[in-house]
Amino acid sequence: MYKLYDFLLSGNCYKIRLLLNQLGIAYETVNVDILHKESRTPEFLKINPNGRTPVLLHDGKYLAESNAILWYLASNTDFLPKGDYEQAQVLQWMFFEQFSHEPNIATSRYWITILKAENEYVEQLKEKKKAGYAALDVMEQHLESNIFFVADQYSIADIALYAYTHVAEEGKFDLSAYSQIQQWFKRIEEQDKYITLKKS
Amino acid sequence: MYKLYDFLLSGNCYKIRLLLNQLGIAYETVNVDILHKESRTPEFLKINPNGRTPVLLHDGKYLAESNAILWYLASNTDFLPKGDYEQAQVLQWMFFEQFSHEPNIATSRYWITILKAENEYVEQLKEKKKAGYAALDVMEQHLESNIFFVADQYSIADIALYAYTHVAEEGKFDLSAYSQIQQWFKRIEEQDKYITLKKS
Repeated sequence: MYKLYDFLLSGNCYKIRLLLNQLGIAYETVNVDILHKESRTPEFLKINPNGRTPVLLHDGKYLAESNAILWYLASNTDFLPKGDYEQAQVLQWMFFEQFSHEPNIATSRYWITILKAENEYVEQLKEKKKAGYAALDVMEQHLESNIFFVADQYSIADIALYAYTHVAEEGKFDLSAYSQIQQWFKRIEEQDKYITLKKS
Repeated sequence: MYKLYDFLLSGNCYKIRLLLNQLGIAYETVNVDILHKESRTPEFLKINPNGRTPVLLHDGKYLAESNAILWYLASNTDFLPKGDYEQAQVLQWMFFEQFSHEPNIATSRYWITILKAENEYVEQLKEKKKAGYAALDVMEQHLESNIFFVADQYSIADIALYAYTHVAEEGKFDLSAYSQIQQWFKRIEEQDKYITLKKS
C-alpha cells in the first residue's frame, strides 16, 4: 500500500502523482494544506522533521524529498535508465533541479500565484527571475541536442524538471523564446497516462 | 583516470576529495578559481553549462553536481548502503543537504569568510541564519537516535552533510549547543583516510 502526503498545488507533489499514475500504482492521499501550516504541526513533523511535502509512506516506512521518492519508485522500471553513468546523470539533473531551478522558478510561482503576494517580494523576485532564466537557459541548451534529459529516453529526470517548468508562467517566466523546451513539453505530454499540474 | 575540476575552498568539492581519498582512488585536479570567474569561461561552460564546481571527468565523460558525483563513485562500495529503501534515504538526506542546508550554511560562509563581504549581505544573512539553524535542528534531532544518517553506517549521506557542517562556524553558526552533531563529527573524523576542509 502506498500513501502520499500531498499538497495539490505543489509541483514537488505533482512529480510523485505523475509517476505513480504512469506506473499504474494505486495510492491513497492525505491532503496537507501547507497554506494553513499543516506541514508544521507536531503530528506532521513526526512524519517529516523537515516539515515539507511530499512524503511517501510504503511498507510502514516514510520517505521525504520529491526526487528521492521518484528514485525509489522508478528503480528497476523503464523510468530510470540503466547504467551507472546514466543513473548518475539522472541524479545530476535532479540535483540541478533542486538547487538551481526549483528555488527560483517554484518560489516565484508560490509568491505570485499561490500566495498572491507579488508586491511583498519585489526585490527577491528580481534575483529569482535572473537565476530562474539562467536555469531555463541551461535546459534549453541541453535540449538542442537531446530529446530527453538522459539517455534519449523519458525518465524521472524529465519528470523532475518538467514539474515546475510547465507551470513557470505562473511565476511570470515567459517561455515563448524557449522553443526546445516547448518541443520537449510536447514529447512529455504525449507519454502514456500523462497528467498536468495546470489548472483546467 | 579520474580528473576533478576543483576549487579548494568549496565544501562541495571537498566532498569529492574526501571520498576519493577514502576510496584510495588516484586523481588529477584542475584548479578552477571561482573568485576569478573561472567557472564561467566559455571553456568551462563546455564542461558544465551550469558553471559550477565540482565536475568529475572519468572515462571521457563529465559529471557535475557534488552529490551525483558522490553517488557515482560510491556505487557498489561500502560508502553506499545496500537496499532500495536505504539508498532512497541516502538520496533523501542528500537532497535535504542541497535544498535546506547548503544554500543557507554554505552561502553564509561564502559571503562572510570567503568574500569577506558580511556587511553587504546583512538582510540576506538574517534569513540564511534562521533557515540554516532549522536545518541543523533537523540534523541534531536525527542524530539523537542514529549514529550516522542512514543504516547505522558511515556513507555518502554523512559526507554530503558533514562538508559544510564542520565549517559552519566560518558562516558564523554557533554549534556549541549541538552536542549530537559534535559527537557525529568525532565519529566521522575517526574514519580511515579522513581529511578536513578546515584551514590548518
